[in-house]
Amino acid sequence: MRGVVMHAPGDVRVEQRADPRIEAPTDAVIRVVAACVCGSDLWPWRGIQEVHEAPMGHEYVGVVEEVGAEVRDIRVGDFVVGSFFASDNTCEICRAGYQSRCVHAEPMGAIGTQAEYARVPWADGTLVAVPGQPPADLIPSLLTASDVLGTGWFGAVAAEAGPGKTVAVVGDGAVGLHAVLAARQLGAERIIAVSRHEARQKLALDYGATDIVTERGDAGVAKVRELTGGLGAHSVVEAVGTQESMMQAIRSARPGGHVGYVGVAHGVELPGLELFFSGVHLHGGPAPVRRFLPELIDLIWRRRIDPGKVFDLELPLDQAAEGYRAMDERRATKVLLRP
Amino acid sequence: MRGVVMHAPGDVRVEQRADPRIEAPTDAVIRVVAACVCGSDLWPWRGIQEVHEAPMGHEYVGVVEEVGAEVRDIRVGDFVVGSFFASDNTCEICRAGYQSRCVHAEPMGAIGTQAEYARVPWADGTLVAVPGQPPADLIPSLLTASDVLGTGWFGAVAAEAGPGKTVAVVGDGAVGLHAVLAARQLGAERIIAVSRHEARQKLALDYGATDIVTERGDAGVAKVRELTGGLGAHSVVEAVGTQESMMQAIRSARPGGHVGYVGVAHGVELPGLELFFSGVHLHGGPAPVRRFLPELIDLIWRRRIDPGKVFDLELPLDQAAEGYRAMDERRATKVLLRP
Repeated sequence: MRGVVMHAPGDVRVEQRADPRIEAPTDAVIRVVAACVCGSDLWPWRGIQEVHEAPMGHEYVGVVEEVGAEVRDIRVGDFVVGSFFASDNTCEICRAGYQSRCVHAEPMGAIGTQAEYARVPWADGTLVAVPGQPPADLIPSLLTASDVLGTGWFGAVAAEAGPGKTVAVVGDGAVGLHAVLAARQLGAERIIAVSRHEARQKLALDYGATDIVTERGDAGVAKVRELTGGLGAHSVVEAVGTQESMMQAIRSARPGGHVGYVGVAHGVELPGLELFFSGVHLHGGPAPVRRFLPELIDLIWRRRIDPGKVFDLELPLDQAAEGYRAMDERRATKVLLRP
Repeated sequence: MRGVVMHAPGDVRVEQRADPRIEAPTDAVIRVVAACVCGSDLWPWRGIQEVHEAPMGHEYVGVVEEVGAEVRDIRVGDFVVGSFFASDNTCEICRAGYQSRCVHAEPMGAIGTQAEYARVPWADGTLVAVPGQPPADLIPSLLTASDVLGTGWFGAVAAEAGPGKTVAVVGDGAVGLHAVLAARQLGAERIIAVSRHEARQKLALDYGATDIVTERGDAGVAKVRELTGGLGAHSVVEAVGTQESMMQAIRSARPGGHVGYVGVAHGVELPGLELFFSGVHLHGGPAPVRRFLPELIDLIWRRRIDPGKVFDLELPLDQAAEGYRAMDERRATKVLLRP
């Protein structure tokens, strides 16, 4: 089959890879209908994370081609969405809602879903079948549920967004935009999106943002405080993963407020004493997308949300490298790849 | 009046200080019946925190001598317990339960309660009157509610200790021991106390610990994992405030678990990427003791808990310096001072 391999920073190729097959009786093999490029794929692309001939991609929707002998719930022909971490969904950690840290967790990124086919471990735990074969226009939205929507949603849940709350979202990538969408769905009263990009501001407003802050760092903090009677936001979602964005998020929250952080925190060091006196709740990490999949699929299927709007570039799989470049240069918010 | 002043690290003197008086109409002046030396008082004593001729002490119980014109609920003659932060208890932050970060918060440590008398700002918000004049044997327990019990309690609440939970407590000072007591009162199923000191282990068991771990650092983490089926504790209270204890606490918690940290985090830097992948909830800071005071006073008054047992040395105020030395040298867990 054809699949994306990153040979080195900036060197993404689509080449022949071995066809996946059932390796464990709990596996499934899916034909990938759509995949995408993630903001986190840019870390190795930019050389911030080491990479050497790695298969790429961890977001996917597809049709089940084959299942192992112990797969009970997922069937050949199902149209499925799965999380970027495979999980058994039965262990104590999964049952507590932290499937991305399942005792059997396997990162789909190591398998590589920017490809024609993919093996999915723990198929019954990892995959959720949608109610039928989806109309074409729902496929981008279903694809977002695999990571970027699920991650933004987790950020908003971790930040305890809800009725009566003012929620600030730091980061206007697809995850940040979906955190805005999630905060709105969770009933937040006021949603402050931090963004300097006009097109993204527009989408944030479309997804339910009530205020836009264009300042970054401490100037952004001051603006959020100004909008919240000097106190800071009840809830802040951090969706970037840099030192500046983490500190902006923590400082934008009021004492006792909640910071949900979902940006992969590369090179971040949190000063203990400042964190202590901030009095915030801090929660985040790799989103347990599987926890939210049934609800997100339902919202998409009933067309109550339209998260697929974050895709502003669609390319055939063979042009994956152009997708990476477009996201790296911020010409695209999110790139969809069609095998 | 007589009061404790720290002139420099290791130099604590009891000397004549100005008698406190009502400065704002919301103030009260109390006659201090008992005060104590806090673990955090040792930071300046050891030169880790700058100090120069500072009045000392922020824990106190006493009898109200005088109230300002706008004080409504607290009356002259009341026996009162107050938090180590004065707070109005009416602002939005206070109503959310974060009185130590009240918009009008004033640290009692800047006033100094290791003294014969003390001015208490925001008397109606800060002080809680006990149901009558307490019997002498309840005074040490009531005094703990002012900080060390309230702080351990907050640590356990921040760690979401409760029924069905395994709670690990890192730190066997008075705060850690009270966190054990709190976890028990909150219904935790299993309580692992990390302690290498026999007398403190004994008190921890007495307060409800079910297991003792004597190892520190990563060896302590391994032991907690071993006791929890490899997963880590649901809840961990950090009650020390060093890099080692913070990392031990975070690593002892399972993914999705809760770390409540109440040790003042001096010089601590949290690695963002490790924190991200830990998937824990992190919450802490200066305890909003005022939130818990009514409940804690009630438990003490009905003799349901005996937190005063942490005091293993009692001295007249004039011998405060010996109290500091005894705690610094770990000859005493907690020192009570009688003006």
